[in-house]
Amino acid sequence: MKMKTSYCASLTLLASLLTGTAFFAGCSDSGSSATQASSQNKGSAAERTYVAPGEKDEYYLFYSGGHSGQVFVAGLPSMRHLITIPVFAPSPGTGYGFDDESREMLGDFTWGDVHHPGLSKTDGMYDGRWLFVNDNANNRVARIDLRDFKTKQILGPIPNSSGNHGSSFVTENSEYLLVGTRFSVPLPMGRFAPVEDYADEFNGMVSGLKVDPESGDLSVGWQIITPPFNWDLGSTGKGPSSGWAFWTSYNTEMAHTKLEANASQRDRDYAAFVNWRAAEAAVKDGKADMLDGVPVIDPAKVPGVLYYVPIGKSPHGIDVDPSGRWIAASGKLQPTTTVFDFEKVQAAIDNKEFQAEFRGVPVLNYDVIVEGEVPVGLGPLHTQYDGKGNAYTSLYIESAVAKWKLPPWTDAEKANLEFTVLDKIGVHYNIGHLVIGGSDTRAPYGDWLVAMNKLSKGRHLSVGPSQPESSQLIDITGRKMEMVYESFTDPEPHFAQILKADMIQPIEVYPKAESNNPNAVWSLSDATYTREPGKVTAKVAAVRSQFGPDKITAEVGDTVVLHITNVEQTTDIIHGFAISGYDLNVIIDPGETKSVTFKADKVGVFPFYCTNFCSALHQEMQGYLEVKPASVTTASVD
Amino acid sequence: MKMKTSYCASLTLLASLLTGTAFFAGCSDSGSSATQASSQNKGSAAERTYVAPGEKDEYYLFYSGGHSGQVFVAGLPSMRHLITIPVFAPSPGTGYGFDDESREMLGDFTWGDVHHPGLSKTDGMYDGRWLFVNDNANNRVARIDLRDFKTKQILGPIPNSSGNHGSSFVTENSEYLLVGTRFSVPLPMGRFAPVEDYADEFNGMVSGLKVDPESGDLSVGWQIITPPFNWDLGSTGKGPSSGWAFWTSYNTEMAHTKLEANASQRDRDYAAFVNWRAAEAAVKDGKADMLDGVPVIDPAKVPGVLYYVPIGKSPHGIDVDPSGRWIAASGKLQPTTTVFDFEKVQAAIDNKEFQAEFRGVPVLNYDVIVEGEVPVGLGPLHTQYDGKGNAYTSLYIESAVAKWKLPPWTDAEKANLEFTVLDKIGVHYNIGHLVIGGSDTRAPYGDWLVAMNKLSKGRHLSVGPSQPESSQLIDITGRKMEMVYESFTDPEPHFAQILKADMIQPIEVYPKAESNNPNAVWSLSDATYTREPGKVTAKVAAVRSQFGPDKITAEVGDTVVLHITNVEQTTDIIHGFAISGYDLNVIIDPGETKSVTFKADKVGVFPFYCTNFCSALHQEMQGYLEVKPASVTTASVD
Repeated sequence: MKMKTSYCASLTLLASLLTGTAFFAGCSDSGSSATQASSQNKGSAAERTYVAPGEKDEYYLFYSGGHSGQVFVAGLPSMRHLITIPVFAPSPGTGYGFDDESREMLGDFTWGDVHHPGLSKTDGMYDGRWLFVNDNANNRVARIDLRDFKTKQILGPIPNSSGNHGSSFVTENSEYLLVGTRFSVPLPMGRFAPVEDYADEFNGMVSGLKVDPESGDLSVGWQIITPPFNWDLGSTGKGPSSGWAFWTSYNTEMAHTKLEANASQRDRDYAAFVNWRAAEAAVKDGKADMLDGVPVIDPAKVPGVLYYVPIGKSPHGIDVDPSGRWIAASGKLQPTTTVFDFEKVQAAIDNKEFQAEFRGVPVLNYDVIVEGEVPVGLGPLHTQYDGKGNAYTSLYIESAVAKWKLPPWTDAEKANLEFTVLDKIGVHYNIGHLVIGGSDTRAPYGDWLVAMNKLSKGRHLSVGPSQPESSQLIDITGRKMEMVYESFTDPEPHFAQILKADMIQPIEVYPKAESNNPNAVWSLSDATYTREPGKVTAKVAAVRSQFGPDKITAEVGDTVVLHITNVEQTTDIIHGFAISGYDLNVIIDPGETKSVTFKADKVGVFPFYCTNFCSALHQEMQGYLEVKPASVTTASVD
Repeated sequence: MKMKTSYCASLTLLASLLTGTAFFAGCSDSGSSATQASSQNKGSAAERTYVAPGEKDEYYLFYSGGHSGQVFVAGLPSMRHLITIPVFAPSPGTGYGFDDESREMLGDFTWGDVHHPGLSKTDGMYDGRWLFVNDNANNRVARIDLRDFKTKQILGPIPNSSGNHGSSFVTENSEYLLVGTRFSVPLPMGRFAPVEDYADEFNGMVSGLKVDPESGDLSVGWQIITPPFNWDLGSTGKGPSSGWAFWTSYNTEMAHTKLEANASQRDRDYAAFVNWRAAEAAVKDGKADMLDGVPVIDPAKVPGVLYYVPIGKSPHGIDVDPSGRWIAASGKLQPTTTVFDFEKVQAAIDNKEFQAEFRGVPVLNYDVIVEGEVPVGLGPLHTQYDGKGNAYTSLYIESAVAKWKLPPWTDAEKANLEFTVLDKIGVHYNIGHLVIGGSDTRAPYGDWLVAMNKLSKGRHLSVGPSQPESSQLIDITGRKMEMVYESFTDPEPHFAQILKADMIQPIEVYPKAESNNPNAVWSLSDATYTREPGKVTAKVAAVRSQFGPDKITAEVGDTVVLHITNVEQTTDIIHGFAISGYDLNVIIDPGETKSVTFKADKVGVFPFYCTNFCSALHQEMQGYLEVKPASVTTASVD
């Protein structure tokens, strides 16, 4: 057992974690060297991150926004915030969640917990079409269209699932968005069972959400029912591991109380190695049972779909390298990253080299499939790849990133895996995820690494108890990693995706020719305003710098339906429509038509105005909603 | 009439604006020179804006967040976003609007339109206590406490008011927050009158909101009723103008339709010069009438409270210089900034040098009080001061900032005011406000100017139709202004305040000793959980990495009240409490107790978990809400 050597360290760590005391290993603080000129003549750190006014960043950085429910977009290497894309929470700044359509998409929820963004892929490479994100809290996923940077679909709550943490993992050709549940609940949903019966009555689920290849529309494809492990981060295969997907779990103990102690009892937790092509075929072959409208596979009855693999304790992710052969997983309570060889995995499956079985599912023989345990450092979490044969693992406890060499290793390296650890750089503080552009594709960009740190205390001007998160920009083009810059975001990014800017050409205006909204009006003279008893309907044209009509008259109690078209065809000329004293702010981008329905529930005169600056006469772009007392003729008196 | 010379240019401009055609004056694009080293040996632009990892910014930059409803905080000179302070809109990332207290503070509104932040002052200098912001849409103001960067109070809707655009202007010793209405409505609120009767039936209002000198609590002090002009930006006096406040208006025409044309008919609009000390005294002397609970002054009946001053057409603000003597106002449709001498204003009042009267209020004689009209350029809007005798005016049409010399002028300068325009720098694009730290105090910082531009098109990676706003950092320490950097924000800042970082020492932990919340529990063993028919109450302790209790049992239909205390006393250790599938995410900062009340409205088991990363075992910080079917004993059957 190679793991034995690290077991004591692991126990010490665990004790340290449980008592809440700090455990800092010595690692150089690179911050102080950041202003020094690079040894590689690439200019000073300041110059390397600087993007002059009028110049543009080279990459998009898409941050998951955590429990803000949104996605934050920054530029790289400047790390400047560019825009927030609203996904699971209303956003009055963009009007999201205020018009009828987006309000309906949000449904009963006003927030989400966005953990892991995933870019769509074609042939194992980013294709720049969609960005998928998960909602850990309310068991949903969403699709953002990179043509216009807008959320186009929210799918969920996903049936038979609680806690969509283990997504969004996109397969090689965006066939599926794969999802693992963090929580387990009694199924079917809405059934009550006491938590004391957790191990027997609760279940988790792995879901394959089908992606329509043309529209990107998501639908629930199939599910695999699992024991009540807490599924965590995963990744999808490519090359030799094509057709597979991988998740780690914590809480293989199936504890249901005091998890911080009870879910760390076992030496190893199980990873799930899922053959999603086999799952798809099994469903097609009628081997699934329907549960809440979804074909659900019992992996004990359908061999070949699911295998368990033991991973050093309390892992938080598993990452497939660009070749698809090497799979790295780290247990945060042991100081090593385990590398599996998928060719050995395939052979072990073929040869049935199982070390055990859990509820009818084979457990692959660890010793047969492992390539090595790299002593990366304390608290290893996630691994990214630069496409040049190197891996980078975040070290939570050490507050550092370790750079290490992927297999194939020389005999000397194999004999002493410490030799494969090439460099280490301190980050501030307590790194969670890290991201290298394209790490999950066949060809990572390999120039920048962004360390996403969990604690930012003391790294910025004090802003009171509610603090931002810190991201640090590290240059990985040289042999040694170099700290270049540090930036901050609102709470709370977990992971990010990086996309080369020239991969996409977003539109900035909705072409009038493409509008098929029957309620659109394209000139002030076409604007209409009608009233029937109990209802006012207006088709409003918004154009610099006027609303037509600029007076809308209702009687109190009327339902008011406004269809507002921004007739502009010029980039950045956005109009807003707000009514003073009403909780309403619709934002209409150039060429867009939005509808809003509300009740005129109080008598008076209510100015409406353009909220999004549009022209020199923006301030004059206003009108009035008149709400008259109810007239005798329309009031019902019987 | 000095204005005659500029009247043709004004007409041309107006025509250009109405047809929507661009009118760009030649101004050098300084962007291309930004990477060049400064001529003043201050280092390259990159080095001047760069703040190395581990170092801190020198200033806070508080942006109004516009219709996002929030305040954005950045660091200066790095321009890095630090945090968003939620004010008028819920913020799941910080839990604002999700707990009972903040939900009640927001009331029926889920957004606001934050235009102008104002820092509290003592003796005419920022004192670092509070930041006040306005809500243009829903007629409110809010107070942010800079001790913890939290919104502590939302006052409003302000009675008798619609469209609180003309605030937040803080008097010299934070006696008042002064507010002018943008819109006019029939009073009292809720009365209907057709908009065709606008000039006669609609009214605007100037309000003095009293600030409690100890707590900062806002209350409505008094109001001055005005004709239905659209009051715009203003400022407060100091030195010779101490006790006074100033607003410009547009729409002195009192037009109610097609304002973009009809509100630009008159050659000059009126500014309001308000003696707020006289207003305060008048109310004390019983000279006000009560309207909706507020003492309202009719300025026609109370001489000395209000004077009108004609300003070149369609002005958008009026700014008092650090000495308090010079007052600059620009009409955006004429290419000059008018400088008034408050000593002459005082003399004109004393000598009753009035050129007219409007509805019983004297109009001061323009020619007697004006010091000069400085030909700053096209589309002048707002003016800031560096404390070294220079003023900086934003030029919307030119997309530029003009630097000009304040009076006293030499005879040669007076004879040709073009000589007072010292420099001009291009900005990108269509600048609205601009800000110099401390410009509204007696001693501006005078080193940096931030240009707040309305359009950012093409200045950043394309992010689709919904675009960010651009801010540009300009070094004003030399004779010539120098463009240094450009950053972006979510929609949509209008104005900002800059505060020296060493002015404040925010707390980062709420001291346990200061907690007087009767529902706080400070250890897992003190946590309680009780159920009576129809109601579950739990006092929950949140501590790394456990909730106590970690199981809460309810029956369907129960009201659940949770009081959650974050027992941590360590900076940045924030806990969240979310229930999967419930629309609920409470964030509790270190030492804070928050309460949340909700209905257990569906049977099942619902995991709850910590949403804000807190420790290595954060992921394990979870528990369960059990919701059982209703029992026979508690169900009412009669």
